[in-house]
Amino acid sequence: MNQTPQADPWCYREHSFRAADAAYKESLFAVGNGYLGIRGYFDEGYPDGTPNTSAACFLNGVYESLPIEYDESAYGFAKNCHRIIPVPRQYFEIELNGVRFTFAPEQVTDYQRELNFQTGAYTRTLTWQCPTGEALEISFQRAASHLDESAARAQLTIRPLNFHGTVTVRSVLDPSNSSLNDVDDPRKGGTIPAENWLRQAEHHASDGSYYHYRTRNSGIDVVAFMTTQTDAAEITSEHSEQRSAHQVSLNVSEGKLSRVISTVSYTDSRKHAGDELLNNARRSAQQLAQLTHDEFLTAQSKALRDFWSTADIQIDSDDGAQYATRFSLFHLFQSTGRDGLSSIAAKGLTGAGYDGHYFWDSETYIFPFWLFSHPDMAKSLLQYRVSTLASAKQRAREMGHSKGALFAWRTIGGEECSSYFPAGTAQYHINADIAYASKSYFQATGDYAFLKEGLAELVLETARIWLDLGHSGEDGHFRIFSVTGPDEYTAVVNNNFYTNKMAQEHLRWACELAQILLSEQPAFAHELMMRINLQETEIIHWQQAANTMYLPYDNDKQIYAQDDSFLQKPRWDFKNTPTEKYPLLLHFHPLVIYRHQVLKQADTLLALLLAGDDIDPDTKKRCFDYYEPINTHDSTLSTCVHGVIANEIGYAEKAYDYYRTTMHLDLEDTHHNTYYGVHTAAMGGIWMGAVQGFAGLRYASGQLSFRPSLPAAWRSLSFKVSYQGRVIAITLDHQEASFELCSGEALTVLLNGKPLHVEQSLKTASL
Amino acid sequence: MNQTPQADPWCYREHSFRAADAAYKESLFAVGNGYLGIRGYFDEGYPDGTPNTSAACFLNGVYESLPIEYDESAYGFAKNCHRIIPVPRQYFEIELNGVRFTFAPEQVTDYQRELNFQTGAYTRTLTWQCPTGEALEISFQRAASHLDESAARAQLTIRPLNFHGTVTVRSVLDPSNSSLNDVDDPRKGGTIPAENWLRQAEHHASDGSYYHYRTRNSGIDVVAFMTTQTDAAEITSEHSEQRSAHQVSLNVSEGKLSRVISTVSYTDSRKHAGDELLNNARRSAQQLAQLTHDEFLTAQSKALRDFWSTADIQIDSDDGAQYATRFSLFHLFQSTGRDGLSSIAAKGLTGAGYDGHYFWDSETYIFPFWLFSHPDMAKSLLQYRVSTLASAKQRAREMGHSKGALFAWRTIGGEECSSYFPAGTAQYHINADIAYASKSYFQATGDYAFLKEGLAELVLETARIWLDLGHSGEDGHFRIFSVTGPDEYTAVVNNNFYTNKMAQEHLRWACELAQILLSEQPAFAHELMMRINLQETEIIHWQQAANTMYLPYDNDKQIYAQDDSFLQKPRWDFKNTPTEKYPLLLHFHPLVIYRHQVLKQADTLLALLLAGDDIDPDTKKRCFDYYEPINTHDSTLSTCVHGVIANEIGYAEKAYDYYRTTMHLDLEDTHHNTYYGVHTAAMGGIWMGAVQGFAGLRYASGQLSFRPSLPAAWRSLSFKVSYQGRVIAITLDHQEASFELCSGEALTVLLNGKPLHVEQSLKTASL
Repeated sequence: MNQTPQADPWCYREHSFRAADAAYKESLFAVGNGYLGIRGYFDEGYPDGTPNTSAACFLNGVYESLPIEYDESAYGFAKNCHRIIPVPRQYFEIELNGVRFTFAPEQVTDYQRELNFQTGAYTRTLTWQCPTGEALEISFQRAASHLDESAARAQLTIRPLNFHGTVTVRSVLDPSNSSLNDVDDPRKGGTIPAENWLRQAEHHASDGSYYHYRTRNSGIDVVAFMTTQTDAAEITSEHSEQRSAHQVSLNVSEGKLSRVISTVSYTDSRKHAGDELLNNARRSAQQLAQLTHDEFLTAQSKALRDFWSTADIQIDSDDGAQYATRFSLFHLFQSTGRDGLSSIAAKGLTGAGYDGHYFWDSETYIFPFWLFSHPDMAKSLLQYRVSTLASAKQRAREMGHSKGALFAWRTIGGEECSSYFPAGTAQYHINADIAYASKSYFQATGDYAFLKEGLAELVLETARIWLDLGHSGEDGHFRIFSVTGPDEYTAVVNNNFYTNKMAQEHLRWACELAQILLSEQPAFAHELMMRINLQETEIIHWQQAANTMYLPYDNDKQIYAQDDSFLQKPRWDFKNTPTEKYPLLLHFHPLVIYRHQVLKQADTLLALLLAGDDIDPDTKKRCFDYYEPINTHDSTLSTCVHGVIANEIGYAEKAYDYYRTTMHLDLEDTHHNTYYGVHTAAMGGIWMGAVQGFAGLRYASGQLSFRPSLPAAWRSLSFKVSYQGRVIAITLDHQEASFELCSGEALTVLLNGKPLHVEQSLKTASL
Repeated sequence: MNQTPQADPWCYREHSFRAADAAYKESLFAVGNGYLGIRGYFDEGYPDGTPNTSAACFLNGVYESLPIEYDESAYGFAKNCHRIIPVPRQYFEIELNGVRFTFAPEQVTDYQRELNFQTGAYTRTLTWQCPTGEALEISFQRAASHLDESAARAQLTIRPLNFHGTVTVRSVLDPSNSSLNDVDDPRKGGTIPAENWLRQAEHHASDGSYYHYRTRNSGIDVVAFMTTQTDAAEITSEHSEQRSAHQVSLNVSEGKLSRVISTVSYTDSRKHAGDELLNNARRSAQQLAQLTHDEFLTAQSKALRDFWSTADIQIDSDDGAQYATRFSLFHLFQSTGRDGLSSIAAKGLTGAGYDGHYFWDSETYIFPFWLFSHPDMAKSLLQYRVSTLASAKQRAREMGHSKGALFAWRTIGGEECSSYFPAGTAQYHINADIAYASKSYFQATGDYAFLKEGLAELVLETARIWLDLGHSGEDGHFRIFSVTGPDEYTAVVNNNFYTNKMAQEHLRWACELAQILLSEQPAFAHELMMRINLQETEIIHWQQAANTMYLPYDNDKQIYAQDDSFLQKPRWDFKNTPTEKYPLLLHFHPLVIYRHQVLKQADTLLALLLAGDDIDPDTKKRCFDYYEPINTHDSTLSTCVHGVIANEIGYAEKAYDYYRTTMHLDLEDTHHNTYYGVHTAAMGGIWMGAVQGFAGLRYASGQLSFRPSLPAAWRSLSFKVSYQGRVIAITLDHQEASFELCSGEALTVLLNGKPLHVEQSLKTASL
């Protein structure tokens, strides 16, 4: 696209402004710290005619609940939709000679902006040619604090290039509830009526201003507190219901920098009750404001060094993969909740797409990255699920299951928010996906404490659903009917291979877990089983169901069938489907799509990745050969899986192409909806592509194994893996693989199927 | 239930008031003439605490269109919902000594009401014990005119029993748009915002008052004009936006009758443009007002004699079947549109249930009654479909079909209004159902003129869809995937037997029709085929698809399978489903229902009835034995079909039970939703039960055949059949069948498989 070659591997940069790109660039340039996220909007707004931008700030887990209206409703349909709600946002206003700075392209030169992965700062610099003749260099910088999740910091720096005089700067806190413009796209997310955002209090004093709002239905209180500092001038305030502005008149001299810093802190009532809601926001803002900007950036860098120390992937290549890969991992860092009360939204904290909902993306596409870089973050994601287990139990009752728990397909607060159940509630595999993550987590950490703090209950309660959902046929096989697999271009089918295979894994893990608990933690095990009324006979039935699980296989094609009827359908007429008819979901009724062999995303292939250890390579290859040509990749969850499997079966070029496709997805807005927010699952897919793809990491068995195969265009690939208390540094090139234990005890891994003992001294093996 | 034994076989009566029954009785006591329908509401309202009544008046085909909101939308989802809209209604107010008559049960004696099937009049009589001591006999009578579809007439008669004095009577025309109270039931139908009912004009003059409204989105103008007459007093008017009242002060004498008559006429802009809208309403009201009440009732009786002359079914029995059967047929008469612009709503004109939509019920459950009693009414139903063919073509494009027409699953104006497509748009069988009716019509009438006036185009355009929807598999069979059959407890399946079988019939009929036209009307045939770009090769493909149609059959069970996967599902756990959990749709999520073998209504069995000539009796019996026990009959479209098939396979007692169940459905409100309107399809099912069931009429081959088998409780059954220009009177008892030609030429029918020549002299055959 129109990217200037990217030199700096630690930055994402833009060198010129294009109105048509403004919307999706807001998502790419967003800053965040897992709790708060701020889109990369222009403080001064955009030139007239710039389409569809959305200046917004979000808090992870803070949502309003809106009743879902159905023209034709039915029993058990999701009743409410949780929607992430924009909270008050900060921006700067600049006035010179009575002229307000607005972004008029003809008055702007030396434009550049960047998102720095080492400081977390978003910086936009430009020179404004004021119509009255003055030239003013302006730099806007914004960062979410990595010291204090509540806080964000914005710095405005100005430097007159050809004059002395007075520049008026206002830092504004704007509580208006901005939403995305109306676009006819189901992926966009909905709006929240202004009357659902209830003003509770507001105030300004010498130390700052704040707004206190409450969501009408979900009853979440939010305080946003802003304090402003500057070196050389007095700050005056204007304050109203509509906005709070901290104003300074800066006496500026040619060539000399002046700056204004605002710190905004956010608290919400899920975390802070009563007076602490305001007190904490005030304290947080004031503490951060006490740091000089250099001190702030130093602290940020330190926090980010900790992140990158185990998260970084180093790629020696000329193809842009290095910065693009870091861009993805950095956005995951920015967007992932780490408080155990939130997860990672499909769009992170960069947009209101999909209403800010959490999906299975968290566990299936993003969790592995965290598990192998920062297991505490992976734990937090599972803690969030544990925190919603009560909702999942209630949902199971609504869905007719007398026991067990069924997680919401899409939610923020835990309640099922999927109003189109064929591609929502019908995706029962969500239970297995979360259980799979829990097993990986336990294998990687041996965290018995967490098992006892809810994780074991989650695994057992979610496992119960399968027995009630499925049934044993006359032939002794256990079958699961009327579910939807990952591929949303096929809905409500019988024996979806992915679902059955993952349910089998889930049931086996639940049985194994029960045995582990009974032998290692018998008191807890008995207490838990008593509490949830789980009998040993039920566990035996789980084992039987797992052992007799029906896995649809086509003997002619020698492939696993996506479901019972998939292979009988006619293929989609790709030849006569012009490019502009993609994504199909925007141009064809679901019934048209459902009756054809056509995929939105990896389905059977994903099962081969997650649970394919017992499936031979030839079968995987045949599956890939069959399903790949009929996959539109209309979902952003697809190409990364194809890349990993392509690597596994030796399709090196395809693997590389899929990696690059995934890498460009947001950076070049190839799905035309990055405006609604970045695609966090695809960003997790970048990690998958590098570590599970090119390095060939597998871990489902509980033992790490690698089958490296680098793209021809790359010279080397280095990354670290955290596992079972160890950190292992791995470097791969086309000839050799090097393993070095950075911390923890020695460990045996498999390299191309052969044991390799990893210890503190560097081990290098030929490939 | 609490019915007093029913003596009069030409009336439906109620002898006491029960508040709990008031709502559904409003539906039962509705009057109508195919264009206008008035619920049997109490003019004076109900006692406090009477639940959920709805005083409303409707015009067939007059609706508002409301945008459908989807929380998660997708391409091709129905955009608007048509909703039948209540129009201004008339009622009387009575005042005596300053006391307004209200229905206080303790003040009312001698209460009775009846709906008379020979005059079409609804009459409610009672004696009011006024708190001031007077006793006043009151009679409210209301009828839709059968002389003039626009008009309704209401007569209030009062007679003082113990006083002379003045009684004030007001006849009120109330334009407020009343809707059903809010009930959490998807079958109820929705409300229409008051702002969508736009007042255009209103006026009162010496000759009457009127209101002129317009629906905001559908743009239909409606005028309601009221004129009032009385013998003995001057009429004064009060008129406002809210109501128009014609008031008279009657000097009444003990024992003497006084009466006030109001005539209300309705016109709408689909039928009358410009000034004619008002002029026609005024003229219509005034003309009807000129008749004395006796003249009016005489004219009504004459019109109804014409109806009953070929529609009546005479049953010699003591089981209430006689009046109940006539009750059903009379409601069909009242509810069926006869202007070619309207059809028959699921609830007729007796309630706003299902939004007043037309479904396949019209063609499949009600059309046969009309075809064999008044073929012109059957024609009108098909003319309505022809009038919406353009919408059906447009819908086909939206559904991805490059040619052909797909009728709306539910609609008023023609546009698809089904917002839950799995039990809506997915029911592609609607096309075959309409085509089947068209074939029956042509066989029964030889009406070439209608073929040329759109019916042929309808048949051919709707046939085209099957080729695009289905596909030929490698085994040469033609299969249809991703559709929903009649049974709405199973959705979006492959090879639904009913759909495939009916599509086969449709394709064969389309081929036959093309041949008929090419040979009998070649000029028209070529013009039509040119106009719709239909090549002969396409017709050949239709024939091939019909010949190779896949009909799922289970070799073990030796039954037709409802669809490809139905028989693999586990049976619903009926044993552990308590009575209060029915209907299942109100207590279980669709996914729970869909994954079990459980039926809402006849599916395979309906195919056996409509297209079962080539299926042997043993197979039918096995199908019945298999499907009957798993059918909940939660749909009111089910028991009638079971009754007919039960008769055919010799299950006499079941047949009789099903007949009585169908008969009681509305009369005893057994489905607890007659409040939303009567169930017109089940009323058609009463005809099916008698004529297709006990008399065993079949006609799909184009030849009438009978296999009589009367219930043991009945002595005889008599009815007439109109066919191919003849009217045949048929009387059956347990020993003999008598056939007599009332008009037209002699005709050969089959009686128990043997030819019987029917001519003017009575032919009696032993059974």
